Amino acid sequence: MFTAIDHSYQIPFDGNFSLSDFPTLDKTNYTKKDYKKRLKAKQKELDDLQQALYANNQYSVLLVFQAMDAAGKDSTIRAVLKGINPAGCQVYSFKQPSKEELDHDFLWRSAKSLPERGRIGVFNRSYYEEVLVVKVHPQYLQAQNLPDLPDFDDKAAMDTFWQQRYESILDHEKHLALNGTIVLKFFLNVSQKEQHRRFLSRIENPKKNWKFSPSDLKESQHWDKYQAAYQQMLVKTSKPWAPWYAIPADNKETMRLMVCDIIKQSLETLHLPYPSLNKEIASKLDEYKSQLIFD
Amino acid sequence: MFTAIDHSYQIPFDGNFSLSDFPTLDKTNYTKKDYKKRLKAKQKELDDLQQALYANNQYSVLLVFQAMDAAGKDSTIRAVLKGINPAGCQVYSFKQPSKEELDHDFLWRSAKSLPERGRIGVFNRSYYEEVLVVKVHPQYLQAQNLPDLPDFDDKAAMDTFWQQRYESILDHEKHLALNGTIVLKFFLNVSQKEQHRRFLSRIENPKKNWKFSPSDLKESQHWDKYQAAYQQMLVKTSKPWAPWYAIPADNKETMRLMVCDIIKQSLETLHLPYPSLNKEIASKLDEYKSQLIFD
Repeated sequence: MFTAIDHSYQIPFDGNFSLSDFPTLDKTNYTKKDYKKRLKAKQKELDDLQQALYANNQYSVLLVFQAMDAAGKDSTIRAVLKGINPAGCQVYSFKQPSKEELDHDFLWRSAKSLPERGRIGVFNRSYYEEVLVVKVHPQYLQAQNLPDLPDFDDKAAMDTFWQQRYESILDHEKHLALNGTIVLKFFLNVSQKEQHRRFLSRIENPKKNWKFSPSDLKESQHWDKYQAAYQQMLVKTSKPWAPWYAIPADNKETMRLMVCDIIKQSLETLHLPYPSLNKEIASKLDEYKSQLIFD
Repeated sequence: MFTAIDHSYQIPFDGNFSLSDFPTLDKTNYTKKDYKKRLKAKQKELDDLQQALYANNQYSVLLVFQAMDAAGKDSTIRAVLKGINPAGCQVYSFKQPSKEELDHDFLWRSAKSLPERGRIGVFNRSYYEEVLVVKVHPQYLQAQNLPDLPDFDDKAAMDTFWQQRYESILDHEKHLALNGTIVLKFFLNVSQKEQHRRFLSRIENPKKNWKFSPSDLKESQHWDKYQAAYQQMLVKTSKPWAPWYAIPADNKETMRLMVCDIIKQSLETLHLPYPSLNKEIASKLDEYKSQLIFD
């Protein structure tokens, strides 16, 4: 089974972790030119790895991205996948669940969208929203028609409820890992100050205007509750077979390179061999050659 | 409703068409450097168009690719999508149908995979296989458990049967066009000689070996039957709202640029406006600004 590489921004697996100790800004800085060069090289490496993944056809890769609004999920996903064969990757952006989706267990809608062997799948938000936005706004649970939903004021019962959700997620990811899916999870760790700077630029720049949504600002007002939910989620669900990384997100370029690099290093641990022709076909190549027509 | 641009390799809508008159090699030639520069520019234009498509959110784009093996479908799809935001596009490669898929009508499996508004979807092979490989090998129909399947030797009844398939496809595509899907269809028109050259290179180049499949060679032996099936398919299903293009495929680079260009020109006819903020939000921007926290 896949085992995570070591990395300084990996959430430890022993539960010994405080989100507030993790920086939102990494000291590394690149010049524009150096950044572009490095990104291009990483993209090429990821493309080669995906080709090997496809030819090998034993593993799939699931990249999960979670973050506060404006942390840079979209642009990071783009940077990661930019060089990869579009036929070898897929992105699902999970929004507010539909009525049909609410009528199923909370893993259902994303399970349908898991990548097949040989492919890289990206979840832009994911089932983790069920222990993030839903934890910050427990009233959303009412639309899920769950049996045995505890009273929201019963703290002990609600703790058990969230604990069960973490366990569902852990069991799901363990199952995926056992069956060949490499699960890598990225929390893009942006500061509120930087988030508001980005909102401001959306407000002030007419070309970015359409990206501004008052509801993002409203969610930002629950900052501390979200940080607490992220802390719990990260500590409960970071495992060697499905690690979380809290990537400093205040500098987008450094963040993107770091994410590419973690994916690259993780896939390299698989030592994917280049595919060879099956022996029966290989032994008949000359015969096939004689059947080709060139006139 | 969308109307096709004019193009010299478009299959005419009046039925006046013979595939054998269409060249498999276009005279245009680019130097390696010129090709790369042109392709990059086209990719950038397609990326901008997809962004406008996403922001506008009224149209989706469906690109259908059909061809004989080794005509260059994979690499053309890659060239077309390479510059586009991976979150804005999706590729489905249709292989031999599964038992579940055979238990539905022949449009079912691809209908499930149609692109949503704002996205570009690619079908690498498609429901058109149902009037191509299935027409060349009518015995495949037996697995479909169809009621009223005619006797394969009854030529008139079989003609009616295929005619009904063309009509199903036409009705389906008309429905898509009426509801905002731009359907563009590319037949990559390779010569048998060039196909065999490419098979040879797969046989002779150890790194390409794994791509060689004896079944591709076997299908090539039905060349004339396939050409007849393509001829019929193209003439019956090329429409102003869902045009077919027979792109000369013996030169891959010229082919890729041509496909990119047709897509670009087609999307430009939509004159997608850049999105603006809704008025209510726009009137409150100053108020939102005052809620941002920077200390």
